[in-house]
Amino acid sequence: MSPFTGSTPATGEWQHIRVTRDEGVATVTLARPDKLNALTFGAYADLRDLLAELSRDRSVRALVLSGEGRGFCSGGDVDEIIGETMSMNTSELLDFNRMTGQVVRALRECPFPVVAAVHGVAAGAGAVLALAADFRVADPSARFAFLFTRVGLSGGDMGAAYLLPRVVGLGHATRILMLGEPVRAPEAERIGLISELTDEGEAQSAAAALARRLADGPALALAQTKALLTAELDMPLAAAVEMDANTQALLMNSADYAEFHAAFTEKRAPKWQGR
Amino acid sequence: MSPFTGSTPATGEWQHIRVTRDEGVATVTLARPDKLNALTFGAYADLRDLLAELSRDRSVRALVLSGEGRGFCSGGDVDEIIGETMSMNTSELLDFNRMTGQVVRALRECPFPVVAAVHGVAAGAGAVLALAADFRVADPSARFAFLFTRVGLSGGDMGAAYLLPRVVGLGHATRILMLGEPVRAPEAERIGLISELTDEGEAQSAAAALARRLADGPALALAQTKALLTAELDMPLAAAVEMDANTQALLMNSADYAEFHAAFTEKRAPKWQGR
Amino acid sequence: MSPFTGSTPATGEWQHIRVTRDEGVATVTLARPDKLNALTFGAYADLRDLLAELSRDRSVRALVLSGEGRGFCSGGDVDEIIGETMSMNTSELLDFNRMTGQVVRALRECPFPVVAAVHGVAAGAGAVLALAADFRVADPSARFAFLFTRVGLSGGDMGAAYLLPRVVGLGHATRILMLGEPVRAPEAERIGLISELTDEGEAQSAAAALARRLADGPALALAQTKALLTAELDMPLAAAVEMDANTQALLMNSADYAEFHAAFTEKRAPKWQGR
Repeated sequence: MSPFTGSTPATGEWQHIRVTRDEGVATVTLARPDKLNALTFGAYADLRDLLAELSRDRSVRALVLSGEGRGFCSGGDVDEIIGETMSMNTSELLDFNRMTGQVVRALRECPFPVVAAVHGVAAGAGAVLALAADFRVADPSARFAFLFTRVGLSGGDMGAAYLLPRVVGLGHATRILMLGEPVRAPEAERIGLISELTDEGEAQSAAAALARRLADGPALALAQTKALLTAELDMPLAAAVEMDANTQALLMNSADYAEFHAAFTEKRAPKWQGR
Repeated sequence: MSPFTGSTPATGEWQHIRVTRDEGVATVTLARPDKLNALTFGAYADLRDLLAELSRDRSVRALVLSGEGRGFCSGGDVDEIIGETMSMNTSELLDFNRMTGQVVRALRECPFPVVAAVHGVAAGAGAVLALAADFRVADPSARFAFLFTRVGLSGGDMGAAYLLPRVVGLGHATRILMLGEPVRAPEAERIGLISELTDEGEAQSAAAALARRLADGPALALAQTKALLTAELDMPLAAAVEMDANTQALLMNSADYAEFHAAFTEKRAPKWQGR
Repeated sequence: MSPFTGSTPATGEWQHIRVTRDEGVATVTLARPDKLNALTFGAYADLRDLLAELSRDRSVRALVLSGEGRGFCSGGDVDEIIGETMSMNTSELLDFNRMTGQVVRALRECPFPVVAAVHGVAAGAGAVLALAADFRVADPSARFAFLFTRVGLSGGDMGAAYLLPRVVGLGHATRILMLGEPVRAPEAERIGLISELTDEGEAQSAAAALARRLADGPALALAQTKALLTAELDMPLAAAVEMDANTQALLMNSADYAEFHAAFTEKRAPKWQGR
């Protein structure tokens, strides 16, 4: 746990998502399989709050995000979210849309890598959650559908118009966000939307293996790598180079860097401590 | 028509380009087929002014940009533009180059998607016009030649050094802009420069079909998607997420969003109004 | 030579790198083949200082960066750099990491194109040097290993977390920088990390041929193209378009632009002077 915790207690039970922990790997499962894991207001709020809690918890070194049942996540529930928004006032609509954006920012800014395990459909907000992860481990059944325009909304939802061009380029991103057509696994791999393509049915286990490897690695170095990748998208070259220099100077004082050098000298594998 | 029009009359006739309209789709044709649609000062000025007029005209919901004859556009006319610039003073040269840049900015900032229909050569300024479109629908004869360095000029012309790295990545963009070699259809598709590759001779009809589909869709949502894609290239993540939240809150008050929900509930296709 | 030189003499001999010149093409060779061209403090300092000197020297119009022996560059020397950093204080660590970043900034900002000739391993800092070049000419033996996290450091080293996402997209860049696995030539070509893939053993000669072609071309136009590609990654669209307009207006007063027009009119090949 971070030394900088105050009066706020940890949440004992997450009612809208399933959360498990195993030796540095947290796994969040969207678990409404009868609804293709459609997101509810409660699920968004839980994801936002969970990511804030985990970001203060030094024992978490990697996170897996996955969906139970036939697919990853079908997006915002048509009845429980779209129906409800029909009677919301402007302030409430803004509150809701800011909350969903906060989930994406938390995924990009949390101090550990996030691995999305994608099988079947990742639609709407589900596609953006996968996009905001650091890794998308997907099997051949995966399809990403940024279908916002098909419900009359903007393709730029939860940062998608920022993130997707930076992952697949502006041409592909424009086509995908404007038309809302599903991007199936072969195309997703070809354009760089998939990090690792697995055999059918292996997305979850491959994502867990990757998260395990990350959690057992030099976790502080990995967290800093993620922080720099996120921050340097928004920085000029000169500032990025200076930020890299500062970060490396910091990490050259870390236990893991010393451990690498000792292990190299002794011709053995390093034992990472993540600090 | 936008309610916010003043004294400026609409242009009755475009002398340097051909403009037609059909139920929300405007089509601009570069029509000097004997010169491979080489651009003249008048053609640039007309493109700039036409895009400004169409941007105030609510009846336009998609635009097709195409070329008559053997190719899309061979770029600035060697005699009528390059020759003329030889005797221009610095102020005139700046005026000319700002005008061409204004065409690109207008293509990126107009409130409707732009579909370039590319067959044969798209060279120089012609390549940049296609690059600035939202979609490049091309047939196998298409070749994009950013040949500015071959005439002794910078590969960064009309925003090309900004746009091309964001479409195909910095490595490909450097090679293409520095060397000025033609990028033929197979490579263009592989690196993400083509949005839709058609059969031979089908670029124009496929572009028209795509524009029709866009114009018949939720046009306000599509216009906002384009605006966000354009703006968020120049924004940090936090600002982009906030802009998305504001945009979605706005669109959740739109007629098309309500229509989606009604149609979904009644198990019918939505009838988009574009507002 | 630039007219704007002062009291500083040119370096007569480079002790840590090999530097040759041939009619506008400078070639820098990392020449510690028994150590796979591992970089030392002296090599970094020489690269920084050489690039500063060459940037003031109008006779250099292209630069080749290559490695002698079995590979391009294995990165920072484990004994001579990593070992030494173990006993450095914070100020010294920052000095060292700023120096390496200055080499990358110099590669991106020098007024001539840089061609990296890559065969065999380009690891750690060696991979970033290749990444910072304008062209990566590689043969099938090439492998790029951004292995910083494997020594307990950040994948964002010397600007890599800025540059790599802009070359291959954020998804690939995250995977490559986090995991530190080698990217072999076929994958490197597929994701846009290689500019030109040569036959086995031909990287050096192909890089030299490309540099020759660039040096014999319209060198001022090429230098400006590079400057715009570098600068416009950090600019909004409107500023980029204005910068392009200013640059083209400037180059339309250049000798090479006039020469293009004269040669075109006289139906002969232009004779570029590079000014």
